[in-house]
Amino acid sequence: MKQIKPGYKIGFLGGGQLARMMSLKCFELGLQPYVMSTNSEDPAAQVTQNWVQGDLYNPSHLRKFLKLVDIATFESEFLDAKMLIEEQKKSNTKIFPSPKLMGQLQDRWTQKKLLEKFKLSTSPFKKIDNFSHAEKAFKEPFVLKQRHFGYDGYGTRIIKNKIELIKLKDFINQNEFGFIAEKFIPFKKELAILASRNRQGDIIFFPLVESHQKDSRCLWVKGPCEHKQLKSMKSKIKKMLHDVNYIGTIAFEFFDYKNSLIVNEIAPRVHNSGHYSMDALNIDQFEAHILALINYKLPTPQPLAKGFAMYNLLGQSNKSPKLVDNNNIHLHWYGKSQNRTGRKMGHINALDKNADLALVKLKKAVKDFQL
Amino acid sequence: MKQIKPGYKIGFLGGGQLARMMSLKCFELGLQPYVMSTNSEDPAAQVTQNWVQGDLYNPSHLRKFLKLVDIATFESEFLDAKMLIEEQKKSNTKIFPSPKLMGQLQDRWTQKKLLEKFKLSTSPFKKIDNFSHAEKAFKEPFVLKQRHFGYDGYGTRIIKNKIELIKLKDFINQNEFGFIAEKFIPFKKELAILASRNRQGDIIFFPLVESHQKDSRCLWVKGPCEHKQLKSMKSKIKKMLHDVNYIGTIAFEFFDYKNSLIVNEIAPRVHNSGHYSMDALNIDQFEAHILALINYKLPTPQPLAKGFAMYNLLGQSNKSPKLVDNNNIHLHWYGKSQNRTGRKMGHINALDKNADLALVKLKKAVKDFQL
Repeated sequence: MKQIKPGYKIGFLGGGQLARMMSLKCFELGLQPYVMSTNSEDPAAQVTQNWVQGDLYNPSHLRKFLKLVDIATFESEFLDAKMLIEEQKKSNTKIFPSPKLMGQLQDRWTQKKLLEKFKLSTSPFKKIDNFSHAEKAFKEPFVLKQRHFGYDGYGTRIIKNKIELIKLKDFINQNEFGFIAEKFIPFKKELAILASRNRQGDIIFFPLVESHQKDSRCLWVKGPCEHKQLKSMKSKIKKMLHDVNYIGTIAFEFFDYKNSLIVNEIAPRVHNSGHYSMDALNIDQFEAHILALINYKLPTPQPLAKGFAMYNLLGQSNKSPKLVDNNNIHLHWYGKSQNRTGRKMGHINALDKNADLALVKLKKAVKDFQL
Repeated sequence: MKQIKPGYKIGFLGGGQLARMMSLKCFELGLQPYVMSTNSEDPAAQVTQNWVQGDLYNPSHLRKFLKLVDIATFESEFLDAKMLIEEQKKSNTKIFPSPKLMGQLQDRWTQKKLLEKFKLSTSPFKKIDNFSHAEKAFKEPFVLKQRHFGYDGYGTRIIKNKIELIKLKDFINQNEFGFIAEKFIPFKKELAILASRNRQGDIIFFPLVESHQKDSRCLWVKGPCEHKQLKSMKSKIKKMLHDVNYIGTIAFEFFDYKNSLIVNEIAPRVHNSGHYSMDALNIDQFEAHILALINYKLPTPQPLAKGFAMYNLLGQSNKSPKLVDNNNIHLHWYGKSQNRTGRKMGHINALDKNADLALVKLKKAVKDFQL
C-alpha cells in the first residue's frame, strides 16, 4: 500500500452530483479533483478550479483529460467502453472500475450473464432481438428492458398483457439497442447493498438497506436491514468482485421475494441507494470509492445511530426551488441551476432510534422544501 | 426565517483552511462560496470556481468582492475593522460577525474589557504602553501579550523573572501595538467551547472539550468534558452574545484553575478547537456558522459517540508530506502546497467509547504520517 502525496489528481469523467460528492471528499483527503463535463455549471464543475470542458464521447477530449490526472473514474456506466479502453492505453492513466467491466455491466444482457456466472440469483431472462423473440419470451406479465442506457426506469416496461405487447411491436423491432425480457417478480420490497474493494483486494460491505422507488426512481432508503440470505449473498458478491478484480464502490439492488434475495441490477459506481452513508456511517460510499482507487485501507462501515434514512429531493416544477431550515436533518444539495419535475436536486439524511423514525422525520422535513 | 434560493453567494475574506472547510460546507447546503485571497493555491481558493484574487487590506479589492456576494464572513479576526465597516457600508453587503465586534476582540485590551463588562471571569490584567508600566504590572511570573495579531502564541511571553523583563525593555518600548500584562495562571488544563448564534438570536453550544497546546499551538482536543461552572459560564456567554448581537460561530478558550473556569481568549470565528465536530457531532462548527449567517435554525449539537478527539497534523519539515491509510480515523487535509515545521497541514478525528481511547487512536495514527 503506497503512500501518496497530497495533490494527487483524481479525474472524474462526468460532472453530475455523484462526481460532485466524490470531488468534495477528495478535498477532505487532500487529493485534487479534476472534472471533465460539458457545462461549467454542472454540479461537479462548480466545486473545483480544475474543471475541463469536454465531451465524454470524444476520444481526443478523453485523452487530453486522462493525461492531466493521475487516476480516473466515472459516475455513469454508460460511457463508450471500447473508447475508454483505447484512451486508457494511450494516456497511460488507469481508469477504475475497469472500462471492460463497465462495458459488461452497462448491457443488461451481459450483466445478466455475469450474474449467472457467479451464481447470483436473478430473475429468469431471455435476449430479445425482435418482436418474435418477445412474443415467445415469457407468459405475461413480464418485464422488457432495453439493453443499454437503462436507469431510473428509462427503457423499462412491464408488459401486463398481449395487447400491451402488440402495441410495442414497432418499438421493439426498430430499437437499436435490443432488449432482454425478465420474468416479473412480484416482490415484497426492494433492498440494496454497497460494497467497496481496493486495489489490493480488501472488500468492505455497507449495511443492507430498503429502497423505495416512485415512478421507477429512488425516493427513499432506510436501514439497516437484515436478511437471512445476506451472508451467502455477500460471499457470492465477494467471489465475483475478486474474480473480475473490481476496484471502487459497487451497488447491488435486490428484490425481496418469498424470503429470497434476487439481484435486480448492479451499478459499477457510487449509487443513490448509498447516499445515506454521508451522515449515517463512519465512512461514506464516496470516500470508500476514492480510498479504493488509491489503494488505501477501507474502514469497516459502522452506523452512527440505530436507524437512518435518506430522502431524495425531486424537482416538482420548473421554478427555482427554495432551501429551508435544516433542523436535525442533513441537507445535501447538488447545485443544479435548472429545476424540473422529477429531477434529483438534492437529498436529505436523518438518524434516529430506528429506521422508521428517521424516515418519518424526513417525510415531514421534505414538505417544507419548495421544490 | 426567510427561505433562500440555492446559489446564494457566501463570501469568504481569506483563503486558509477555515475558509476551505466553510466553503465545502456551503456546497453541501447548495450555497455558492466565493473566496478572496492572494494566491490561487490557497486552501480555500482550490475548492471553488469563484476565487477572486485580492488583498484583504485593500479597500477597493474589498469593495469589489463584497459587491459580488450576498453576504460575507472572515476566517481571521485580524482584518482592518474600520476599513471593513466602511466597505460594508459602501457595498451594501453585510459582514458577519460584525466588523465592529471583530475590532474589539482583535485587541487583547478591549477584549479583556468586554470580558469584564459581561462578568466572564478572566485573569487580572493591565494595559502596558511602555516598559515602566510593565515593571509595575504584576509580580513575576506574569504574561505579556502583544495587543494585536496574537494567536498560536505569537506575541505572547511568560515573564518568569526581573532579568527576563529587563531584556525586553527595548522590545516593549518600541512595539507599535502595545501590550497587556496578565497574571500568570498555573492552570490544571485548558478547556474550550464553541457557540453559534443566528440572526434571529437562537444560540447553540457545542460540547466542552479539553485542548492541549504544544509550543502555544493547538496539538489535540478531546471531549466531551464536564465542569461544574459550565452552566453559569454558558448563561454569561449567552448574555454577552445577545448583547453584542453576535452572529456566527465563536470560540471561548478557558483555563481550568482551582475548579474555576477562567476565560483565556475569545475568537470571533470558527476555531481549531472545534475541528472535532466535523466527524463527532450531528452538526459541525462550519455548517453552524453558515446556518447562523443565513438565519437558519441551528440543530442542537449532539455527539455521535461517547468520546471523540482531534489531532493536528503539524508540518515537521519542508519536505512534501505523505498521506497514509485512513483506517478508522477521519482525515481532513488542507491542500497546502508548501509544508514547513509547525504548519497546520491537516487534522485527524476519531470517535471511540471514551475521549482517551479516541485520543490514543489518533496518537498512534499520527505516527504513520510523514509530515
